[in-house]
Amino acid sequence: MNTTTITDLTRRPSFDFLRIVLRGTGQVMFQNNAWTGLLFLCGIFWGAYAGHLGAVAWGALLGVVVSTLTGRLLRLPERDGVQGLWGFNGVLVGCAFPTFLGNTWWMWLSLILCAALTTWVRTGFNNMMAPWKVNSLTFPFVFCTWIFLLAARAMHGLPTTHMSAPELPSTFSSMADLGFGHLIAYWLRGIAQVFLIDSWVTGLFFLAGLAASSLRAALWAAVGSALALLTAIALEASGSQIAGGLYGYSPVLTAIALATVFYRPNRYSAAWAVVGTLVTVFVQAGMYVLLAPLGIATLTAPFCVTTWLFLLPRIRFDENEHPDHSNWDVENKTHLASPRK
Amino acid sequence: MNTTTITDLTRRPSFDFLRIVLRGTGQVMFQNNAWTGLLFLCGIFWGAYAGHLGAVAWGALLGVVVSTLTGRLLRLPERDGVQGLWGFNGVLVGCAFPTFLGNTWWMWLSLILCAALTTWVRTGFNNMMAPWKVNSLTFPFVFCTWIFLLAARAMHGLPTTHMSAPELPSTFSSMADLGFGHLIAYWLRGIAQVFLIDSWVTGLFFLAGLAASSLRAALWAAVGSALALLTAIALEASGSQIAGGLYGYSPVLTAIALATVFYRPNRYSAAWAVVGTLVTVFVQAGMYVLLAPLGIATLTAPFCVTTWLFLLPRIRFDENEHPDHSNWDVENKTHLASPRK
Amino acid sequence: MNTTTITDLTRRPSFDFLRIVLRGTGQVMFQNNAWTGLLFLCGIFWGAYAGHLGAVAWGALLGVVVSTLTGRLLRLPERDGVQGLWGFNGVLVGCAFPTFLGNTWWMWLSLILCAALTTWVRTGFNNMMAPWKVNSLTFPFVFCTWIFLLAARAMHGLPTTHMSAPELPSTFSSMADLGFGHLIAYWLRGIAQVFLIDSWVTGLFFLAGLAASSLRAALWAAVGSALALLTAIALEASGSQIAGGLYGYSPVLTAIALATVFYRPNRYSAAWAVVGTLVTVFVQAGMYVLLAPLGIATLTAPFCVTTWLFLLPRIRFDENEHPDHSNWDVENKTHLASPRK
Repeated sequence: MNTTTITDLTRRPSFDFLRIVLRGTGQVMFQNNAWTGLLFLCGIFWGAYAGHLGAVAWGALLGVVVSTLTGRLLRLPERDGVQGLWGFNGVLVGCAFPTFLGNTWWMWLSLILCAALTTWVRTGFNNMMAPWKVNSLTFPFVFCTWIFLLAARAMHGLPTTHMSAPELPSTFSSMADLGFGHLIAYWLRGIAQVFLIDSWVTGLFFLAGLAASSLRAALWAAVGSALALLTAIALEASGSQIAGGLYGYSPVLTAIALATVFYRPNRYSAAWAVVGTLVTVFVQAGMYVLLAPLGIATLTAPFCVTTWLFLLPRIRFDENEHPDHSNWDVENKTHLASPRK
Repeated sequence: MNTTTITDLTRRPSFDFLRIVLRGTGQVMFQNNAWTGLLFLCGIFWGAYAGHLGAVAWGALLGVVVSTLTGRLLRLPERDGVQGLWGFNGVLVGCAFPTFLGNTWWMWLSLILCAALTTWVRTGFNNMMAPWKVNSLTFPFVFCTWIFLLAARAMHGLPTTHMSAPELPSTFSSMADLGFGHLIAYWLRGIAQVFLIDSWVTGLFFLAGLAASSLRAALWAAVGSALALLTAIALEASGSQIAGGLYGYSPVLTAIALATVFYRPNRYSAAWAVVGTLVTVFVQAGMYVLLAPLGIATLTAPFCVTTWLFLLPRIRFDENEHPDHSNWDVENKTHLASPRK
Repeated sequence: MNTTTITDLTRRPSFDFLRIVLRGTGQVMFQNNAWTGLLFLCGIFWGAYAGHLGAVAWGALLGVVVSTLTGRLLRLPERDGVQGLWGFNGVLVGCAFPTFLGNTWWMWLSLILCAALTTWVRTGFNNMMAPWKVNSLTFPFVFCTWIFLLAARAMHGLPTTHMSAPELPSTFSSMADLGFGHLIAYWLRGIAQVFLIDSWVTGLFFLAGLAASSLRAALWAAVGSALALLTAIALEASGSQIAGGLYGYSPVLTAIALATVFYRPNRYSAAWAVVGTLVTVFVQAGMYVLLAPLGIATLTAPFCVTTWLFLLPRIRFDENEHPDHSNWDVENKTHLASPRK
């Protein structure tokens, strides 16, 4: 295959667009890799249909497509676009809407509006945070989705079908079945819940997807979910939340972010990531209480908040290190931009 | 009338002060125009007395006077002062206090303290937001008034007479009378509620006031309220809130801000303003739910939040455009500084 | 005693560390003075044991030691460290945890994690606020402690023994015993509550500690608590909260900050501090209502918020003044770094 053929292939817009969409899915866990995104999507489809909520998977696809197209329509810098950075908030919006809201036309139209919104809100938040040298992470998804989930309680057109009722923080049972097989399932669900999927099989897909891009990221995802699981059990958090992996997904993201993306990997940054993972568990627990009176989900806010707390001090563990927190993407050199891969 | 006479007239301090106070009222809807402010005040007095709550109108007058004097006392830059930018938060404080609190001496003293507070809080917030190239809009009013409305629940000296009780978000009826005459009234009330007035006649005064300064602003106020009304009805929001115009006032402000103040008017910025107006309706609905457990009003926060979301990305629709978001005022060239007008 | 001996003494690490720890305690009220810190600690121990909650005093000691060691471990700039600026958030964490949570092993481990966390969160918040030319004050303590208090409601391992139950804002009694002796006790408790101690004797210790470093600071602490007490009584706030000094501690800190730390003392800054003290009372009342549905304490957040509102406008009362808000510490020239003192 000569150079001309390659150029022709990469010029095919539909093929390009597909890769960008897949990379957008991979970027939810910081992987600029279409194969990762493909495996993530497989995991999402498996989990969604296994949970009899196939709309979640189609929502994810719609979300990433809409937010990617929005970036192009607004003529935002292409450099972000080709790396999938327009799409990763949108794919999460697409998972969240059918997970929490009833399946109506208004839900789908709101999903499209919200997924589009995340694209320029990300640009806006990144502008806002630029003086602090941090990135908005998945907070555009969190912020925009919170708006629509709250609005759903004031609009019959958006049915709050799968949302928990608002209530003051109250009693709960910390009993969870702690057999070895169960623990493995909770641990894998913690990874699957990054995309709001309640399935341990999906956790395996996600680990495979991470490994396809970076063994180190896969390792830290596994470590993050395990550490969070043990901490939540030790501190006797809600058993049903532990079993559903709801104490795992935020620490998974914190662990990947601190150990592999924003700091050069070494033993100091590894220790830093472990502390960050532990703190995320408390932030997660606190946010469950904070949002209980409103009856909305924490989404990935605990990950964002904790990661910011560990990036803002700009602590350097390496004399030769020049971290550029504002563009996580430039750190990821794994491109799938040519068809040779 | 020769130049000397003009100069003499403009030197009369009381006349100057009156114009500044009127411009402060006009600046609530971004109009640096004393006639606009006068028509707004007429609308406020009409609506307040029609609603048997005349204190609202006198509060508005007191608020704008106090916050304007505060700017002078603190020797803040006169350039803001002559354009009415010290007073627009104060006039809203003056409308809000008698609308929500009982008519006691402490209420009036608190109103004075809060109106004064908004003047330097505006300077502080504008300093804070300067790196982001956005303006604090009416958020000083929102923030300071929230403090006092919350405090009122902890102080018998400030009776929470007209505030709704704190409650967890719950069920509501989306039934509203949708006859044509009713729709017109809801639409005009949406404009009147910018100053917390529940009267469709006041909406006419406000449209006239806007038209006196800028036909384009009047048009977009009308479009914003109409779009919001249709959206709220389509998504089946609370019928009584729709009828009271409570889904209209924030979108009205967003529409004026995005379509006529912060972007050079063209078809792209018009489309942008329409999307912003739609998003404001969801932010408004979400904030009703967010604040329900506290039993305080959203005030104009949904407008501020949405407008920021649409300004922070610094998207440019015109190659020749150099928007300076941090000083909306410098865009408005309509001065009433000379008696010729 | 010759120079060599002095140098030898200052080289003794244990003695150095003790002074830094004591200064950290003093810095809670902006005093870079080990004797102040010692008197504060005496007041804390007296109040803790008088209230049959000795763990509060030992928590305070543990908190300041842990957060100071954390600063050294992370190699943060020593200039902050020697002035006690690593420790003042930690000592407050140490007071707060045993005040609100049950005395379990997990409480003590969480206290250590949270005290350590405040050290780099302070660095992070100061970085974040640097463009605004304000300091994070005690907000790192507030933010980190809120996380753990909220998390405690979702974790049986952290018993919410002494926390009030979450409830919607409701009725309360504003009756307090207003005899002269009682008023004196409320006034002194307002000062003691800066460290969450409910004892008028402790208030005397704190006044003595302030006077040891700065008579002006002691005077303004006294004035701040008195003004807040009268305001809360006049506006009929909750009688039990007034009696416990819970309307006093935030205004005490605002008064010291505005009158003696961030502005050159003169009659203008004195008037500014008085207005700031009054506003703090309303912010305090508002935050009690805001946090009632979550059942967590306001801590010193009202002081932080109000002080920011009065610093952000960067109003100058003195032509020759060059306030450097971002480093309150450099203003305090009283060093105890040599054994001569």
